[in-house]
Amino acid sequence: MTSLTDMTIAGLSALIGSKQLSPVELVDAYLARIAAIDGDLSAYILVTTEEAKAAARTAEAEIAAGNWRGPLHGIPIGLKDIYSTKGIPTTAHSRLLKDNVPSEDAETVARLAEAGAISLGKLSTHEFAFGGPSPDLFSPPARNPWNRDLQPGGSSSGSGVAVASGMCAGAMGSDTGGSIRGPAGFCGLVGLKPTYGLVSRRGVLPLSWTLDHAGPMTWTAQDCALMMEVLAGHDPADPASVNGPVPDFKGAIGRPVEGMRIGVAKAWHESADPELVAAIDKAAAVLAGQGAIVDEVTLPDLMDFHAAGRIILLSEGFAIHQRHLRRQPEIYGALFRDRMRLGAFISADQYIQAIRFRRTLVDQMNLAMAPYDAILTATQYGPPDRMEEAPVFPFFGKPYFTMPFNVTGQPAAAVPCGFYSSGMPISMQVVGKAFADDVVLAVAHAYEQAAGDRVTRPAIAGGGQ
Amino acid sequence: MTSLTDMTIAGLSALIGSKQLSPVELVDAYLARIAAIDGDLSAYILVTTEEAKAAARTAEAEIAAGNWRGPLHGIPIGLKDIYSTKGIPTTAHSRLLKDNVPSEDAETVARLAEAGAISLGKLSTHEFAFGGPSPDLFSPPARNPWNRDLQPGGSSSGSGVAVASGMCAGAMGSDTGGSIRGPAGFCGLVGLKPTYGLVSRRGVLPLSWTLDHAGPMTWTAQDCALMMEVLAGHDPADPASVNGPVPDFKGAIGRPVEGMRIGVAKAWHESADPELVAAIDKAAAVLAGQGAIVDEVTLPDLMDFHAAGRIILLSEGFAIHQRHLRRQPEIYGALFRDRMRLGAFISADQYIQAIRFRRTLVDQMNLAMAPYDAILTATQYGPPDRMEEAPVFPFFGKPYFTMPFNVTGQPAAAVPCGFYSSGMPISMQVVGKAFADDVVLAVAHAYEQAAGDRVTRPAIAGGGQ
Repeated sequence: MTSLTDMTIAGLSALIGSKQLSPVELVDAYLARIAAIDGDLSAYILVTTEEAKAAARTAEAEIAAGNWRGPLHGIPIGLKDIYSTKGIPTTAHSRLLKDNVPSEDAETVARLAEAGAISLGKLSTHEFAFGGPSPDLFSPPARNPWNRDLQPGGSSSGSGVAVASGMCAGAMGSDTGGSIRGPAGFCGLVGLKPTYGLVSRRGVLPLSWTLDHAGPMTWTAQDCALMMEVLAGHDPADPASVNGPVPDFKGAIGRPVEGMRIGVAKAWHESADPELVAAIDKAAAVLAGQGAIVDEVTLPDLMDFHAAGRIILLSEGFAIHQRHLRRQPEIYGALFRDRMRLGAFISADQYIQAIRFRRTLVDQMNLAMAPYDAILTATQYGPPDRMEEAPVFPFFGKPYFTMPFNVTGQPAAAVPCGFYSSGMPISMQVVGKAFADDVVLAVAHAYEQAAGDRVTRPAIAGGGQ
Repeated sequence: MTSLTDMTIAGLSALIGSKQLSPVELVDAYLARIAAIDGDLSAYILVTTEEAKAAARTAEAEIAAGNWRGPLHGIPIGLKDIYSTKGIPTTAHSRLLKDNVPSEDAETVARLAEAGAISLGKLSTHEFAFGGPSPDLFSPPARNPWNRDLQPGGSSSGSGVAVASGMCAGAMGSDTGGSIRGPAGFCGLVGLKPTYGLVSRRGVLPLSWTLDHAGPMTWTAQDCALMMEVLAGHDPADPASVNGPVPDFKGAIGRPVEGMRIGVAKAWHESADPELVAAIDKAAAVLAGQGAIVDEVTLPDLMDFHAAGRIILLSEGFAIHQRHLRRQPEIYGALFRDRMRLGAFISADQYIQAIRFRRTLVDQMNLAMAPYDAILTATQYGPPDRMEEAPVFPFFGKPYFTMPFNVTGQPAAAVPCGFYSSGMPISMQVVGKAFADDVVLAVAHAYEQAAGDRVTRPAIAGGGQ
């Protein structure tokens, strides 16, 4: 029998809504799972046991009284530790904020709580959503539940690990160049970087105002849609928030892909791992089998997005951290410090050129995507490296497949599409037009249902791998 | 008797609309005036005699046929030579663009033409709206018609000189730190820097995307309102253009100031020329005499706007010009070159801090202005310096009174308010809330009418001063 902690949000929600499962029992099951395996995986920086139990009792009482709030009521979630939580430390996994206790919840955290979701705690991250899997922070880096010698991806590493290994039913991540989609890819999850401006960033510690996105990480596309129903919407107090219609997330799950135009960006990912290229071809065939019209699409040069994105990210990140980097560099971990201080060498005019080039790239991408409803490409080049092999400057390597959609602001999801022969999960990216996040999840769900390969969870022995 | 070229747009418009004056006669009068005096004043870089005459004949025929387009029909205007004009050189007063012939009109130029206004030609400017009154360009700098040994202000110097000396009835200027209001002040005109986003900048050569504003310069507030009726409005092809309601310019002229709250920013301008301080006090008393409720307002520190504005302007200006500044610096005049290359030394994080500080300043200014309909302060510190006394780095001197409203984007007009004992005009600034440009012109017009001191034109002998 599937254990509670292996279930989806949708499955748990059906049990809770019909009073077959109490949130108290469910939270206890997750807390036991965390106690049993997180010593080896380090997904959590802080487990808020008492707060979670109290929230579970409240949810139980509300639901017993007939006040079921909706699909997230009583669902245990985790929060990347850059999401501000009122009265609960929010550290960004950095010594700099080790004692930071916010006085307000992030807008997304408040929305999730209002919908009845129960936070189990704060999840590990690359330092300030930018460092690597650093061994020199106050808390160890998260490890991949499919193979703890390998990286889980970042920066939302704890979120990826916790959802994949059943330590929460869904989690919040953030994505500036791929930080939701990367760990979702390496951990075998669905992770959505929503359209820029669709989900509030108020109360989420920033890395780059131009590129940052807040979004959910879940086991299935449907779970992602359930979280997006709660997360999406205008926040007048977030200057980047867009006041406009919200995508139809309710209608996304089960929407047929028949007649949808799907472009495969083969030229982008042809140099990736051959098993991955084959998996994307197979996924495209599965969607074609469902009636989608699939062909090859030529997108603008990946290097252009890489150049613009990296300059913007380093400039804005350095603007945020320059004071502390200059006065007390040793407070940061080595990977964050060595990476971020590159930002000191970027001139105002270079930054301005990058910001302006971004508009050109948006135009080019819109033109290329115009005939399509969705694009398929790789999330990453192949399976993850070993934990100790994190390069100081990963962004001087191959251009990421994820960054283009931080630059353009389009919705993009990492979607599992099989396994490497090594047993590690393979991930493809499904990309949509701006504010067509529902189309992305519709395609992801249709693929999941047709492919039927979302049953396997990583094998983790109780108490460790 | 007042000559045609001394009249206001409103006055000329009444004659043209009632067929008492032909646009052909009027254009001829202006062309004769230019021929007689512009050899000494250098307001025009290029007089488009044939095009103007042809347009006048067309206007005459249209009006004779009963197709009067409105108050600007047949009105001769001038364009700062950074406004793109289809088929007509647009040089920015720089050797770099000496042979630049645009293939399209700027949106504002097209709107003015559509309204029937007739361009007499292209007006001199500080090089690329940023250099000074440079003697080393391909065409001489404009001179102040009140005293040709003195600077006319800049960068819209030709626009200020031409309107003041009756070489056009109205002109287009641009304002990044005070470039409309400065020459309007020194030449004794009304010059409006409209609300950011209200007037399209498409086709106007940029200096700073964040701070640039396009706007009109005229002899009276009413003339300014007549031009703004045509200029204001959404341009979907200008990314900075705001799609929203347009201020009520028709209703502005004649609107009583009774009951309006007007704040005098005394602490800002108390160190200005005592004659100017006294003139503003007197203007405030005139408005109080019309029923306005006048008191003193405390605005945020002038230096903060100066710091943010200068960093933004130099960064964005350098981003535009860095390629040519590096490869062929000698193509620019010395003042432009020496000033603009400061931008090379600004880092990305300094620029980003300035851009973010701007939002704080907007909030502070909105708070300070909340109880007021309009603010009065100085336009400049006193009368202009001599032509040869232009400092290389004027922005390392006292902070401008004009820059704050480029930083905040609020509407601000230079309005004549008397004369120094030397005979040079005094100017005050009337500032409004965002998109209340009509309130600014209502206050300016009410003051003009009550003070009755707008009759004097600079005395210029035919053929020279």
